[in-house]
Amino acid sequence: MTRKFNFSAGPAGLPDEVLAQAQAELLDWHSKGLSIMEMSHRSKEFVSVAEQAEQDLRDLMAIPENYKVLFLQGGATSQFSMLPINLLGTSGKADYIHTGVWSGKAIKEAQRFGDIHIAASTEHNNFFSAPAQSELQLREGVGYVHYAPNETIGGVAFDYIPETDAPLVADYSSSILSEPVDVSKFGVIYAGAQKNIGPAGLTLVIIREDLLGQVMPDMPSMYDYKLHADNGSMLNTPPTFGWYLSGLVFQWLKQQGGVEAIAEVNRRKAAKLYSFIDASGFYANPVAINNRSIMNVPFTLADSALDKAFLAQADDAGLLNLKGHRSVGGMRASIYNAVPEAAVDALIDFMAQFERQNG
Amino acid sequence: MTRKFNFSAGPAGLPDEVLAQAQAELLDWHSKGLSIMEMSHRSKEFVSVAEQAEQDLRDLMAIPENYKVLFLQGGATSQFSMLPINLLGTSGKADYIHTGVWSGKAIKEAQRFGDIHIAASTEHNNFFSAPAQSELQLREGVGYVHYAPNETIGGVAFDYIPETDAPLVADYSSSILSEPVDVSKFGVIYAGAQKNIGPAGLTLVIIREDLLGQVMPDMPSMYDYKLHADNGSMLNTPPTFGWYLSGLVFQWLKQQGGVEAIAEVNRRKAAKLYSFIDASGFYANPVAINNRSIMNVPFTLADSALDKAFLAQADDAGLLNLKGHRSVGGMRASIYNAVPEAAVDALIDFMAQFERQNG
Repeated sequence: MTRKFNFSAGPAGLPDEVLAQAQAELLDWHSKGLSIMEMSHRSKEFVSVAEQAEQDLRDLMAIPENYKVLFLQGGATSQFSMLPINLLGTSGKADYIHTGVWSGKAIKEAQRFGDIHIAASTEHNNFFSAPAQSELQLREGVGYVHYAPNETIGGVAFDYIPETDAPLVADYSSSILSEPVDVSKFGVIYAGAQKNIGPAGLTLVIIREDLLGQVMPDMPSMYDYKLHADNGSMLNTPPTFGWYLSGLVFQWLKQQGGVEAIAEVNRRKAAKLYSFIDASGFYANPVAINNRSIMNVPFTLADSALDKAFLAQADDAGLLNLKGHRSVGGMRASIYNAVPEAAVDALIDFMAQFERQNG
Repeated sequence: MTRKFNFSAGPAGLPDEVLAQAQAELLDWHSKGLSIMEMSHRSKEFVSVAEQAEQDLRDLMAIPENYKVLFLQGGATSQFSMLPINLLGTSGKADYIHTGVWSGKAIKEAQRFGDIHIAASTEHNNFFSAPAQSELQLREGVGYVHYAPNETIGGVAFDYIPETDAPLVADYSSSILSEPVDVSKFGVIYAGAQKNIGPAGLTLVIIREDLLGQVMPDMPSMYDYKLHADNGSMLNTPPTFGWYLSGLVFQWLKQQGGVEAIAEVNRRKAAKLYSFIDASGFYANPVAINNRSIMNVPFTLADSALDKAFLAQADDAGLLNLKGHRSVGGMRASIYNAVPEAAVDALIDFMAQFERQNG
């Protein structure tokens, strides 16, 4: 067995130690004679796993006590409708910031449920930047303000948390747990698990308690945050294996020193890669310096005719999944928490060699 | 490592061989240098796994070509609303058969979306039976007729497929793949994976193509069967590990000889256990003979004060998760496909011994 370096944008790589533990106990969890995924979600064993995972996440993110943590299904995509259904409230209005593909999808879905205003968009700039606070045209009396702190496809990140009167809602799918975040500034933080948390099929929602209980009538019960909160995320059978595996990731992250410590590594990994790209005349990244993502680093080659050769040779060198999203092309290195610094070093070495041979 | 006999109702036991294969390739799938759960759902490797799983299921169930197979999230519970949202159509009406807890939950949720008529209920009989065809009071012109062929909690099963003019919809969560079924008699078959298919967090929907495209307006996009069908169940990131693991279960089932072969084993397992219970004055099962489930066998002890001792001693004997559902008490042995005949033999031996010591 050889583990290669995996730059997948998601479902993404998990820490070796986490997978090794899951592997060791896959058929017999804690000498109980069965797998964790073969237990009732209401068994005392699974409930202890679930509660520990939540507590570890609360510790890692310093989540205040007046926030609920929900372990749901349906991906961030389900949240695109669940949010307006729960938070538009009596105003029927929300403001959205548009900085790329994912915030765009959130806007399109929200428009089906209410009066959605684009508070700012960087589409005129090909989404190569995020708007400044001063550029946000926020309305009064809206149910919430939505943005994506990190756009997975464009590699564009906010370098500040927007100031809003209404509750702030953030799609943190691709940057949760990558850097410390002051949760108290948000009404809702949500994230698909399959980047920095665990396997696909689990979605985390961190919601301030006073925002529960405003759901639109005549919507599916499964779209009511309060019902999920009241039932401890067991309104129906949760994705138990994903919940367990996420718990192992949270424990691993604590062993790494927590979010502060991993953020230092993440910033160092990103700085190395961007520095190399900027110093090169062969590779380029178009994103405004202060909006560059430390998780997703898209880059192009001077000659896109070389893309195929780059990807094939990278693959041979054990550097996997560097192809950019089908909507934008080029390359993308996703360097989430589980991607070791050695992977970034190896990528830079490979890129330098490829440039020497083809530049 | 010792694997014990697991009678969990769900999440339920998986075949040893399936878990062993998943374990062997958990960190390195097919020498690719990464886990199957660390790959993009759009990678050619995962797509091949996904397509093979669908094909194997189609083979096993002989699913006609004019049916789509969807691999969704949200459990059967999400289907309770997704069905009326997609199938009530212009009539706004549906008929439901009520035979226990799960069909009851389906009715309650459907009532939020339309005019739901109870075509028959066996509540007067404590749900110890299913109604006969002649007892079904079906209306004309409804969008669909819904029933649960096997009630997981009550252990009540239909011994026939209802004849209906409207499309027939079945919650097959706890009996899919346990016996051959003529899929062409159904409009929709759905099933949560965590009983006879795979891990929790995946839901199968088998839907006749002409039923797509009737979704109510103003509902979440994720609740539109047609969108999922048009996107090959990748409207958002699917639960890739669950999909893969289900595929391994389908392959295992083919190796067992398919559904016909496993049905013989299932009927033999169930017959043994019911015969033992019926011959005993100590154990009892209240369900009408012709409506007894071959998957879920609830039973009571002559003296419920002995329940705790029974469960503790069963656990010591390596017979796990025999406690009945919290809503009904008593015992329940769920004997899904993955529960070997040896487990049923061991259970009967234990029950006989317990009766001798306490009867």
